[in-house]
Amino acid sequence: MKVAILPGDGIGPEIVAQAVKVLEALRADGAKIEMETAPIGGAGYDAAGDPLPEATLKLAREADAVLLGAVGGPQYDTLDRPLRPERGLLRIRKELNLFANLRPALLYPELASASSLKPEVVAGLDLMIVRELTGDVYFGQPRGIEIRPSPNGGSERVGFNTMLYAESEVSRVAHVAFGIAMKRGRKLCSVEKANVLECSELWKEVMIEVSKDYPEVALSHMYVDNAAMQLIRAPKQFDTIVTGNLFGDILSDAASMLSGSIGMLPSASLDEHNKGMYEPIHGSAPDIAGKNLANPLATILSLAMMYRYTVADLATADRIEGAVKKVIAQGLRTGDIWTEGTQKVSCSEMGDAVVKAI
Amino acid sequence: MKVAILPGDGIGPEIVAQAVKVLEALRADGAKIEMETAPIGGAGYDAAGDPLPEATLKLAREADAVLLGAVGGPQYDTLDRPLRPERGLLRIRKELNLFANLRPALLYPELASASSLKPEVVAGLDLMIVRELTGDVYFGQPRGIEIRPSPNGGSERVGFNTMLYAESEVSRVAHVAFGIAMKRGRKLCSVEKANVLECSELWKEVMIEVSKDYPEVALSHMYVDNAAMQLIRAPKQFDTIVTGNLFGDILSDAASMLSGSIGMLPSASLDEHNKGMYEPIHGSAPDIAGKNLANPLATILSLAMMYRYTVADLATADRIEGAVKKVIAQGLRTGDIWTEGTQKVSCSEMGDAVVKAI
Ligand SMILES: CC(C)[C@H](C(=O)O)[C@@H](O)C(=O)O
Ligand SMILES: CC(C)[C@H](C(=O)O)[C@@H](O)C(=O)O
Repeated sequence: MKVAILPGDGIGPEIVAQAVKVLEALRADGAKIEMETAPIGGAGYDAAGDPLPEATLKLAREADAVLLGAVGGPQYDTLDRPLRPERGLLRIRKELNLFANLRPALLYPELASASSLKPEVVAGLDLMIVRELTGDVYFGQPRGIEIRPSPNGGSERVGFNTMLYAESEVSRVAHVAFGIAMKRGRKLCSVEKANVLECSELWKEVMIEVSKDYPEVALSHMYVDNAAMQLIRAPKQFDTIVTGNLFGDILSDAASMLSGSIGMLPSASLDEHNKGMYEPIHGSAPDIAGKNLANPLATILSLAMMYRYTVADLATADRIEGAVKKVIAQGLRTGDIWTEGTQKVSCSEMGDAVVKAI
Repeated sequence: MKVAILPGDGIGPEIVAQAVKVLEALRADGAKIEMETAPIGGAGYDAAGDPLPEATLKLAREADAVLLGAVGGPQYDTLDRPLRPERGLLRIRKELNLFANLRPALLYPELASASSLKPEVVAGLDLMIVRELTGDVYFGQPRGIEIRPSPNGGSERVGFNTMLYAESEVSRVAHVAFGIAMKRGRKLCSVEKANVLECSELWKEVMIEVSKDYPEVALSHMYVDNAAMQLIRAPKQFDTIVTGNLFGDILSDAASMLSGSIGMLPSASLDEHNKGMYEPIHGSAPDIAGKNLANPLATILSLAMMYRYTVADLATADRIEGAVKKVIAQGLRTGDIWTEGTQKVSCSEMGDAVVKAI
């Protein structure tokens, strides 16, 4: 198995280094793993003037899986739009056709006190959001900023984007979501805004069509505004959620906040053949970059997702997740999840502890 | 002053009846108030085959302010899209040019335990969301469901909508939001997704331009996904938020949930001349309709907003809000906000108590 390692910016390199240690430990144990590193995001711009350098994309295409750290930093904020770090991320998703973004929100009992929600509201939370990742208003054409006639006779600028889903785009992510719901609680909630948007109306129709192939899964529908409320009011009502790119961006960030420990949450972005890109949900945290303070567990847990979805080696996935649970149970904490009575460790110490626990 | 009374569906008529009692009490006290009632939503469809009957729109146009209950009900879910209750709501907003939707989220200390968030996270919460209400993907053209060529050679349906903002649309809502922020904590956070969408990029530019007229207000910018997180993590960081129609729909519902008592939250939708439509944030609650169980306080507080924004009679606005605070302090509670040790009252009893307290 060949893994493309794309550390990116900010804390990206330090957290990815810990995940690499874990892969090395597995290799020392007999697993056949090849790794190759390349720059992306701001690092891509610095190295090659492009947030997704040609060579990085080539490596990512050839690899069986991609491990990404995080992209972005204040020094890149003034670049032209096509050169900004996020563009590298959006382009690699599109180029690799990674249309299914899996974002679990899960509460670690030992970390429950970090949540801003009451313990009884989030205790036992285990929710999976499947976000469509290569369509919607993120990529729809036409888009732009133009001069148009204004209502009062003159002319003015308008900014516009196209929110668009084709049947085939909805149906392929629906199949992924139903498949995942089948392996979980068999409850799938499709989130849209079909009372206002035609784009959502089609989304909902296709979900209902695809549901016929999965009679064991209970499909429900919810408007996005209500879903945002319900995630706060009673998040445990959900098992698996499927939604479009934009609503998924918003809701999955909200959901990740419920647990109060975003430093613990991994994600997977998959194509049709379960090739995937794996990355923590959190960002590049420029403020603590290079200080060996970041929490590497979300990145390490992303490796577990890699074993679950791309390698289909569930034993190794469980082994990695077990090691993370163990270090948490041992009371080891990076600064973001530290509380009175637990032991504060650095990013690399946390990585070492996981390697030892594996 | 002429008020158009549009009770709508579900619990709409019973909650509006309590607000009407309050208006009658003010009239008995000398205020000049004329009221006229007309159907909207499902009731409009039942009465005239249209969720916004011609006569209702005419009345609303002539009136100085509109008081709306709520629209929608399961019996209307199978109607054709243009006949559904929500359409009446969207059309009246657009026809009356009610572009600025003010949605406060406020915690009543006595009701703090109803929140799903920890008390320290929401104690003292007092946040105002200004949502643009007549533009964005809600109204953008072109929109529809069409057959188009599919990537694999055949053809398939696509659903699409246009997310669009013109400079003039952004700037007028910006002025309203800055004006409100001036009277509050002088902190305005503009929420968009300018890292991905051109529509948001223009929004952000115009916000920055308009901010030059309000040097006392500190303008900040936040991406919508981050805003959804921050509302859950630390909502008290916000004073006033301004955002587009779609993001505002999602975020204001999330914000209303923070207080845990959505039955307490009013809203105002204003045009250029401060003419407005006033309505509770909650929906038509068909499950408890007609049972005299609903909480009328959000509707009564919407009257207070009417006095604040349309009538510009702040003394009366304060008087209504004071009466609501008093009945809450007295321990009166409808079912939705009832807790052990407080007195459960019906919708009409709550209305009577407010009238008495006024
Ligand atoms: C950085 C940004 C373009 C990206 C997105 O909106 O998809 C991020 O928020 C995410 O969720 O991965
Ligand atoms: C009913 C619906 C069309 C409406 C909206 O999306 O604007 C509602 O959610 C609201 O927020 O008033």
